This record gives sequence, structure tokens and C-alpha cells, in this order.
Amino acid sequence: MMSRLAPRWPAWLFWWQAACPQGVSAQQRTWAGASRIPGPGGPWGATGTSPLVRRGSSSAFSCAPEVVLTRERYSVRRLPFSVVSEDDLAALERIVPGRVITDPEELEAPNVDWLRTVRGSSKVLLRPRTSQEVAHILRYCHERNLAVSPQGGNTGMVGGSTPVFDEIIVSTALMNQIVSFHNVSGVLVCQAGCVLEELSRYVEERGFVVPLDLGAKGSCHIGGNVATNAGGLRFLRYGSLRGTVLGLEVVLADGTILNCLTSLRKDNTGYDLKQLFIGSEGTLGVITAVSILCPPKPSAVNVAFLGCPGFAEVLQTFCTCRGMLGEILSAFEFMDAECMKLVGLHLHLACPVQESPFYVLIETSGSGAGHDAEKLSGFLEQVLGSGLVTDGTLATDQRRIKMLWALRERITEALSRDGYVYKYDLSLPLDRLYDLVSDLRARLGLHAKHVVGYGHLGDGNLHLNVTAEAFSPSLLGTLEPYVYEWTARQRGSVSAEHGLGFKKKDVLGYSKPPEALQLMQQLKALLDPKGILNPYKTLPTRT
Amino acid sequence: MMSRLAPRWPAWLFWWQAACPQGVSAQQRTWAGASRIPGPGGPWGATGTSPLVRRGSSSAFSCAPEVVLTRERYSVRRLPFSVVSEDDLAALERIVPGRVITDPEELEAPNVDWLRTVRGSSKVLLRPRTSQEVAHILRYCHERNLAVSPQGGNTGMVGGSTPVFDEIIVSTALMNQIVSFHNVSGVLVCQAGCVLEELSRYVEERGFVVPLDLGAKGSCHIGGNVATNAGGLRFLRYGSLRGTVLGLEVVLADGTILNCLTSLRKDNTGYDLKQLFIGSEGTLGVITAVSILCPPKPSAVNVAFLGCPGFAEVLQTFCTCRGMLGEILSAFEFMDAECMKLVGLHLHLACPVQESPFYVLIETSGSGAGHDAEKLSGFLEQVLGSGLVTDGTLATDQRRIKMLWALRERITEALSRDGYVYKYDLSLPLDRLYDLVSDLRARLGLHAKHVVGYGHLGDGNLHLNVTAEAFSPSLLGTLEPYVYEWTARQRGSVSAEHGLGFKKKDVLGYSKPPEALQLMQQLKALLDPKGILNPYKTLPTRT
Repeated sequence: MMSRLAPRWPAWLFWWQAACPQGVSAQQRTWAGASRIPGPGGPWGATGTSPLVRRGSSSAFSCAPEVVLTRERYSVRRLPFSVVSEDDLAALERIVPGRVITDPEELEAPNVDWLRTVRGSSKVLLRPRTSQEVAHILRYCHERNLAVSPQGGNTGMVGGSTPVFDEIIVSTALMNQIVSFHNVSGVLVCQAGCVLEELSRYVEERGFVVPLDLGAKGSCHIGGNVATNAGGLRFLRYGSLRGTVLGLEVVLADGTILNCLTSLRKDNTGYDLKQLFIGSEGTLGVITAVSILCPPKPSAVNVAFLGCPGFAEVLQTFCTCRGMLGEILSAFEFMDAECMKLVGLHLHLACPVQESPFYVLIETSGSGAGHDAEKLSGFLEQVLGSGLVTDGTLATDQRRIKMLWALRERITEALSRDGYVYKYDLSLPLDRLYDLVSDLRARLGLHAKHVVGYGHLGDGNLHLNVTAEAFSPSLLGTLEPYVYEWTARQRGSVSAEHGLGFKKKDVLGYSKPPEALQLMQQLKALLDPKGILNPYKTLPTRT
Repeated sequence: MMSRLAPRWPAWLFWWQAACPQGVSAQQRTWAGASRIPGPGGPWGATGTSPLVRRGSSSAFSCAPEVVLTRERYSVRRLPFSVVSEDDLAALERIVPGRVITDPEELEAPNVDWLRTVRGSSKVLLRPRTSQEVAHILRYCHERNLAVSPQGGNTGMVGGSTPVFDEIIVSTALMNQIVSFHNVSGVLVCQAGCVLEELSRYVEERGFVVPLDLGAKGSCHIGGNVATNAGGLRFLRYGSLRGTVLGLEVVLADGTILNCLTSLRKDNTGYDLKQLFIGSEGTLGVITAVSILCPPKPSAVNVAFLGCPGFAEVLQTFCTCRGMLGEILSAFEFMDAECMKLVGLHLHLACPVQESPFYVLIETSGSGAGHDAEKLSGFLEQVLGSGLVTDGTLATDQRRIKMLWALRERITEALSRDGYVYKYDLSLPLDRLYDLVSDLRARLGLHAKHVVGYGHLGDGNLHLNVTAEAFSPSLLGTLEPYVYEWTARQRGSVSAEHGLGFKKKDVLGYSKPPEALQLMQQLKALLDPKGILNPYKTLPTRT
């Protein structure tokens, strides 16, 4: 149950209305209960959060132009793996009977990434149901030197989950069983193919939340989330998967099952092997099951959506917010005016506040509705009074909270509808975070349709996106290595949370020293000596 | 500044006093301000938290019996490393001039662990000041096949930081510089030899806290904390070092400096190499610098110390507490009556509440003193009213908070003064957590002086300790493998937070499958092919 805070908003609301600049209507200035947000049937449609079309499905863009084959667009050479033969298909059929897919039409979607930027040419997809089946598959592929591309919900941003050439796709789609859930500890154990949103629903019914939330939740698999070390919207509150994932079961390249599926909060017996696989994008092993610690579900959640006059004010709002909201702050997201424009243009979502150069979404989650409302009230009074925020709206019930979140979560979808998207996912020092967006807007001029900046400000994570009518090598040349060099000068990360996959693997060196690259190559050689696991991904092409 | 909540304790306090069982004096029943705790000069002495004698110093036990050499007590054979020669000493003197220690008296303390259970016979200790010096040392030792024992504060529990034979001790004691602290992000970068308590003081003056706290804080080094993946008293609130450590600088076995000392909250560029070194006890590399995310300092802290009539009530108090205190709960510790007895006997600390079979220490940390007091008040009313708790005291100012914490933090010290201590640090399912203590008490009868149980209940972490007049192989045989087999049957961990070091290395197999052990051995061979780094530690002796 979400508590409504509206009846508690006191004097400051009226004070703020009185202090509000001229020309803003009384209705626009109403805060309580987010009354300016259209209800079901309004421009946002009936659902709040989930993309209208699930990621991983290609039907969203059925009229979009064909995606160029990766091997044709990028300079990449096939490694000397075996080619799948009729004998191989027969052998695989014995391992996963009835679940060897070779129909070209069925293979269309899993060969293409959700963003429609890369395309493989795999001829076979396998749908194992158990870790043992995955083990048999990998043992066979290892012996036969057949390359494998593990695939979850195929919602990644960097081409990490689609084949590059003819790798066998091993899908976790049928590995979707919950193994156990402990009602006191909140430890959830499940197979890798469970969809995040379904897990979320399952644990929320039991009074807990999954410590991870992201826009793709309706399609992404928990195994893929862990394999990419997904960050997402709850990172600020619950931290990294490196802390919340308690155990993993992983199948190694040679088919060995590594069972580290513990449910213990603490375990210092030897090296923490699961960490090797978190964020390694399926290149060191295939994650088949996950044990994750779910925190208790907060009884009170509020979302404020605010307009700020400049990025300096966004930063000051963040500092004020962290100080005044403390332990109940659960998200601090920002987006610029260009994002809002695209969300309106392509998804018909209306901006719930006065037009502003920047918008901020703040979520609080706590155990006492009254206390949280008081804290939030004090904070809003402060930021409105000092001019850091010029307009805003507040949601306290679940439906309206989802509607406000949709503005932020669906930016990726809006961008995809705008054309070809050049995506950058950077960690930068907070005080320089937005400078790159401004620099790039000036640098690109009319060569780009839109240059937008948004992201998880609380984590120092900028999503910088550039859209254009179509892919263009010359535009790419203007963007890269410029963006990476800019980031490296700030000692930032060229991939904060999306990973490297296929598209970013060659820029690893901008964020890591040569000694680190060498050790990564050694780990890859140790765990996957034949290199059959998700080849052409994560690590730079050896020269 | 700690806020005092006392004036806010309202009606329930009197209600509870009225409902209190007969025979408890009015003075004993006073809650507010922990008035039953003696002030400075009382039985606890003037200081609250820090052990009277710093760990790592042997002077505490100068009249204690000599510690038997590890090589004599345990069946362990020296590996074929070189022996330090005069030429080696001259070469090392060129690397760290004036900081090559060979005086037997000075080598006494660093050869023995704090618990006085293991003793090495190292003839040389080096005190580098920089990572470059550590790199030169390791490059030299690697070439010469000389074994090395890295040492921080030497406060470990499992003999991980003392040499077993004549390994060269590389101390981080002079690597104690803070490199940087960012006032907005809270990111602290420092050398590995900084003492935890000093770091704590440094960041607290700037409005932040180190996300790690433990009894040995006055002596332990942050590098050692990371190398052992220390858990400690703030784990419940801030989670594992695997999430809060942002970056590390590590010197590898061959002298290569691996600089992953990033200050970014998020960085998904390639494999997260720092995770290899967190918790690997100096067997894969020597940590020379740490970047750690410090959360904002809570403005209100309260500590309640409660007596419970049974372990079932302790568990129910925990569930109630987690539900009612939610995001402000920062610690939930328990100790049994035997612990309290020893703390009283050896350290002269008085029990601040009525004698009970179990005691619970609950800490809240939040951003609003009034809100926290209300939440805590509601919780205490609930547990007292339902009989889960029979007596308690509350501290709201820093001095008294420290005094209550000392009861819990100084148990280790009290145990050490009781005789030889057999220590077990286990993760177990909450509902079976204390059964092992009772089982063992029955099993040992008069063979042990004391069998005690305490620990981080909120993390499922039991510290089980058995004391005896002296080390005895037959008592050891009664304890082991019994304790490990018991733990393994519950799918627990045989080392929750202390690590394996020398004393627990051979029990790894109780918590990890053979496939995991094999991969750990492979990682060791990859990173330290000659095995010079902290040999005889962490991984089982190869048979």
C-alpha cells in the first residue's frame, strides 16, 4: 500500500504558491497528488512504466529499415571456430529435445539487438531448461570448438547479447523458475531466465523489493542483469549487485558447473569467485542461477518531479536533498529539456511541470509515511524558497508514481524512435557531468538531430545520447574518440553501467591501464582457453 | 553532534515502568540517558571503545606464556623458498634505506598474532612508504624466490598476517597518508596503512563516516580490512566492502603495479579486478592504496541495550525491529550471558541492565532526531509490552553510546584474557544460529572454561568461542571437525568474516565445492606463479 501524503502538506505549499512567479496558473501550481498528470486514457495511456513494446521484440520497428550485419558495418574478422554441422544439430537435439531452433524467421529477433544497431547471422538457438542442459551444451561446444552467444532478455545497450557471426545462441528464456524465497531473510534464489518485473512482483507480494530496477524490467532476465552488472534506478539506495548478489551458479566454458549459489549474507571462505562473473557479459561463464538479497519493501514511497533553471541548480538540489532526506532518499535522476521534448514527441507523454532547462526526479522510500512527508516537505520548502527549483509536482500513490517514473524510464524508447542512436554511458565527476553534453551540442551543430543528457545523477552517471537519421561513419568519427578522450581527461569511466559488449570493447583502454587489460586477457584465457564464450565481446580485439 | 533524545521519551516510559515485574528497583528501570552506566572513572575507565591495549602490541600479555612456533604446533612444511642472505639484506636496504628491521626484539611482536596463537620466525621486516617501494621489494623477492608476508595492523583472527616460517614481513605501517577526500561525493582515497580509527575521525570531521567499523579499529589498517574483506559493525547498514570499495591499487607478485584506484561509483569497463584482491588475504597481491565511498554522517544516533529471556525472543526482537525501525536500523548485535560474565570478570565492565540469558544491542542512525526517537519509542513499547524484552537501557549521547558499544566490542579482548581461545566465525540460518552454542556446551562439559556465542545477528553471523587454560590437541579434536560438519549441514559458512588465513585454510572445503577450490588454485597460480605471496594461507595445503 502506498500512503498518500497529500493531507499532510501544510503551510509551505500555500507559501510557495504565493511566492510563485506571475503567469503560472493556479492549477499548474497545485502540488498535492500530482493533479496535473493525466489519468488512464490520457496521453500517457493506461500503463505507467513498462514500454508499450517489450524490449527484445522486433515488432516495434517492423517498418524500420533492415539492420546492417555487424560483420559488414564493423571491421571484425571471424575467429577460426567450427561451423555448425547437421551432426552438431542432431547432437544438440539430443541434449535439448524439441528446443533447437533453426527456423530463420524465429532467429530474426535474437540475431538483432533491441536498439537495432547490430545483427548477427546465427543459424541456431537453443533453449535449455536446466543448468545440467547448459553444462551439456557447453561441454559439447567446447569439444567441437563451436562459439556460443548467451542471451537473456536481449535488452542490452552495447551489442553484448547478440551474435556477431554464426555463434550458437543459448537462450535463458525457459530457465525461469523461482527456486526459493525466504520470508525472514528476504533471500531470493531463482534461475537466470526469470524476468526482472516478474521477480519484482513476486517478492513485493511478500513484503520485499528486488534491489534492482530498470526501464527494461518487463523483458530483461536477472541472469543478464547480473552478467552485465546492471546499475539502474535503485543503485543509489541499495548499491551495486556486487553487494546484493549473494551467490551464483555458473557453467564454465568446458561444461563444469560451478555451484556458488549460497544464500549467506557473509562468506569469507576463499576467493569470491562469483565476482568474476558479475559484469563479465557471459565471456567467462554462463550464469544459470542467482541468489539475491531483497530488502524489505518500504511502506511509504513518494516521487517529486521538479524543474530546475540550470545544471548548477540541479547539483545544489542534489546536495540539499542528500542532506535533508538522508536515509529515505532512494533515487535522484535528472533529464534535460531535449529529453522531455523527445518523450513528448515520440511517446506523447506530457510534461507535468512548467517547461524548464532541466528536470529532476526524486524518490523517497521509508518506513514511516508521516516522517517521510515531513522530511520531504522541509526539503521542498528549502529548494523552492531558494530558487533552486522553479516548479514541481508530487506523487504519493502508485499509479501516479509510475507515471512520473515513465518520463524518465522511457527516454531510451523515445530516443530509439528518433532515429539511429549513438549512446554513451559515462561516469564523470559531478561538477563536470553536463559540460560534455553542451560541448558536444556545439561541436555537432546540425550534424545531429538531438544531443541529450540524462541519467543517475546521484551515482555520477551520465547517459549522453546523440540521434541522427541513420548511422553515419563521419558522424561517428566526430563523436569518437572525442567523447572518450574527454571522459578519460576527467578520469571518468567510458562505461558506467552498460558494459562494453561488442560496441564498446575497443575503448576499454580509456578507463583502464595496460596492466589491467593484460590481467583481464589472462583471466579470459584461464577460464575460456578456446575463447568460445561470447567471442568478440568485452575485451579489445588483440592486435 | 549527537542529539539527545531523552526529553522526548514520553508516556510509554512510565507505562513500561508500571508494567515492570516486581523486584526491580526504580533506579534500575530508568531508561532515559542510560543513567545506570557509570561515568568516567567508573569501572569502565575513561575511554569507551578502544581496547585498553592496542591490538598488535604484545605488551598486553607480557607475562603470558611464550607462544609456540607455528611450525612446531601445526603439521606444516616449509616450501622451497630462498633464505634471506646478507646480500639480500643489502639489496633491500637500497630499496627502503633505514627501514629494514632485523633486530630480534623488534621482530618479536610482528611474528606473533594478536591472539597469541601462532608464531613465525621471520628475520626481517620492511617498512616501505610508497607503492613504488613495495613494487621494488616484490620484484626483488620474486626474482630471488623469497617469500613475503604482508602485514597491516596484525589484528586478524586466523593467523593471516603473521609469517609461518621465515617469510619477509612487509609492513604497511608507514604507508599512512590520506591521498584525497571529496567533500561532496564522500570518496576517500588513502594509502593502505592508514589506521581505521584515524580515517574515521578524519571523515567524521567532514560530515561523513567510514562504512566500516570494528573492535580493532584503533590498530587495524584499511589495507588489511580490505584484504580480509572485514565485515564488522556497520555491515547491516552499509553492506559489504565489495560494494563500498570503489578502487584499489595493488602490487602484484612480480612487482607490477595495478592501478585500479578509481573514485567512480560506477565503472563497468571490463572485469572488476579489484574484487580479486578484496578478501584474498594478501595471497594474490599487496594492496597499497584504497578508494572507499563514505556515506554522510547521520545526525542522530541512538543505542539501546536490551535483555531478552531467550534466543527465540532475540530473533523476534530482530524481526520486529527491522519492520519498525526500517531504514534507520544500523546495527543489531547479540551476546549471551557468558559473554557478559567474561566482560565483567576480565575488563570490569558492569552490565547496564538486569541479568538476562541474552542481550541485544540495537543502533539507529538517521537524519532526523525527532523522527528516530518516535520510531524507536514505538519499537521499544512493542517489545517491552509483548515480553520479548525484559529490561533495557538507552543511550543518546556519544560518550554513553561508546560505553554500551564497548560491552559488545570488547568481548574479543575479554576472551583473550580468559585463556587460550578456540574461535569460530560462522554464517548460519538465523533460526539455527544459537543451537550450535548449546550443543557444544553440552558436548564439551567441563573440558572448556567457557563456551560463548555472540555476533552480528542482523547478518546471520555467529562468533562462537571456546576458552581453555591452554591449547590442547584433544580439545581441538572434540571441537573439530564437529563445528565445521555442523555448519556444513546447515549450508552455512565456516568463515563469515574473519577469512581463512593460516588457521582455517584447510576447512575451506566445508563451504565450497571442489570445482571452486580448483578455480581458486588456478587463480593463485596465475597471479603468483612462484607462490611467494603470503604462503601457507587461504588455500588448503595441496595433497
